Amino acid sequence: MAQGTNSISPSVRIGICAPSTPFTRDAARRVMALAARTHPQAELVFAEQCFSEQGHFAGSDTQRTDSFVSLANDPDIDAIWFARGGYGAARIAEAAVQRLNDVAHRKIYLGYSDAGNLLGALYRAGIGQVAHGPMPSDIGRTGGEEAVVRSLDWIVHRLADALEPGLVSGQKYAAFNLMTLAMMTGTKLIPDLHDHILIIEEISEYLYAFDRAMFHLCSNLAGQGLAGIRLGGVDDIPENDRPFGESAEAIVQRWAGENAIAYLGRAEIGHHAQNRIVPFGLLPI
Amino acid sequence: MAQGTNSISPSVRIGICAPSTPFTRDAARRVMALAARTHPQAELVFAEQCFSEQGHFAGSDTQRTDSFVSLANDPDIDAIWFARGGYGAARIAEAAVQRLNDVAHRKIYLGYSDAGNLLGALYRAGIGQVAHGPMPSDIGRTGGEEAVVRSLDWIVHRLADALEPGLVSGQKYAAFNLMTLAMMTGTKLIPDLHDHILIIEEISEYLYAFDRAMFHLCSNLAGQGLAGIRLGGVDDIPENDRPFGESAEAIVQRWAGENAIAYLGRAEIGHHAQNRIVPFGLLPI
Repeated sequence: MAQGTNSISPSVRIGICAPSTPFTRDAARRVMALAARTHPQAELVFAEQCFSEQGHFAGSDTQRTDSFVSLANDPDIDAIWFARGGYGAARIAEAAVQRLNDVAHRKIYLGYSDAGNLLGALYRAGIGQVAHGPMPSDIGRTGGEEAVVRSLDWIVHRLADALEPGLVSGQKYAAFNLMTLAMMTGTKLIPDLHDHILIIEEISEYLYAFDRAMFHLCSNLAGQGLAGIRLGGVDDIPENDRPFGESAEAIVQRWAGENAIAYLGRAEIGHHAQNRIVPFGLLPI
Repeated sequence: MAQGTNSISPSVRIGICAPSTPFTRDAARRVMALAARTHPQAELVFAEQCFSEQGHFAGSDTQRTDSFVSLANDPDIDAIWFARGGYGAARIAEAAVQRLNDVAHRKIYLGYSDAGNLLGALYRAGIGQVAHGPMPSDIGRTGGEEAVVRSLDWIVHRLADALEPGLVSGQKYAAFNLMTLAMMTGTKLIPDLHDHILIIEEISEYLYAFDRAMFHLCSNLAGQGLAGIRLGGVDDIPENDRPFGESAEAIVQRWAGENAIAYLGRAEIGHHAQNRIVPFGLLPI
């Protein structure tokens, strides 16, 4: 892990950990090289834990928790960037957030997909500026450099162009992967979404599973005072033995309608290079 | 649909509908032929709706609801047998159960997998004798005739040999597919499981998705007074790009332990021919 620097120009130190699945050193090098070119004032600090492997995970639950907590509690780190999703953050989020100190409250936390478990737990606890957006792992995607640069633009410059274009000031937002959020309902990870516009996206789920998750989510959010729901990308839908018979957007409109939740149209988030930033809560700019 | 008969010997009329996905006429013929051989006193009444198709489903939500309700409310039908799972019962269960009359309270309701949505809603409403067990669709499985015969043994004779062997009188039980139950938490379909031993099974899910569903389920059931949890089959686990690092049973033990739920061992239910019957609530024999 990089140590504290004494450079003269103001730098932004971004701590990167992997709360879910392992990252690769090669991808980390590519992200570092890209950032050095586009954001020389950013210093990327990849925790060694990113490259650990234990079964499915980037190290044991304890290793992943410790890695996140030590970066978040480090006064020399300005922002936490989750390396990639996969699955695993749900196993550590509650305990990890309980160990955060005052320093952790002043940081940006950025990621999406399975990292939504930590975004939710942090936002629920009122810690930091939580945002849904591209991760270092997006470097491996077609057009992924653009996605990585967008997150750096947000972390380093708070560039408004990095934001989901439909966001308006004075409105609260939250954004999640649908299945991740569906599995957070009723747990200690889900934040209060009263008055929020919720933006969801999905990847690699059959439309019947998407429909089932929407049944679950909308049933659980009914009567919670949501300001509305918007739909990002629904990508890489597997072929089923027969067509589902309804589009992803029609599914969202139907379940939202049945649960008296306003459907407010599409959004530019998702498991793709166009994934734009959605800061949680009121827009910070 | 068959009409009322005037046969002299007492017969058991079993109404079969498909609340989720379509059945085939060929499979229905095989089930009828098998039942005629093994349980001549049983009369199987396949609703025409079983063979309807609309996109993913065995007819529209309205068709599937009407089919179930008309069989359940029919005084000449003694038991309702769900033809197969797949996905779809969650979309109709709440509305369907609200339309049931007094006659519906005196019936057996038998199925598993996605039909668990109806089992849950019926049990929550205190309607009938709900049971988790093989469906007509099991005829297509290796050894499936044995599974179909087991359900007929239960419906027609209440044969104790058809039951999950670990059940004891004086104890309440409920059994579900894990993902189906996970998606029922917080909705109007999930019954009160206080004092129950909950038996779960899973099919065709990656172990990381099994782990995630167990996180969700145990978090939601923590503090609800469950008497314990038992694990049936966890079958056809897809190969992931790397091993998860923990068995399905170890996953259940860990999440149960973290949520102060007693883990009580394995059970003989699942998406396989050995799937035994689990009546909900107290053992009726």
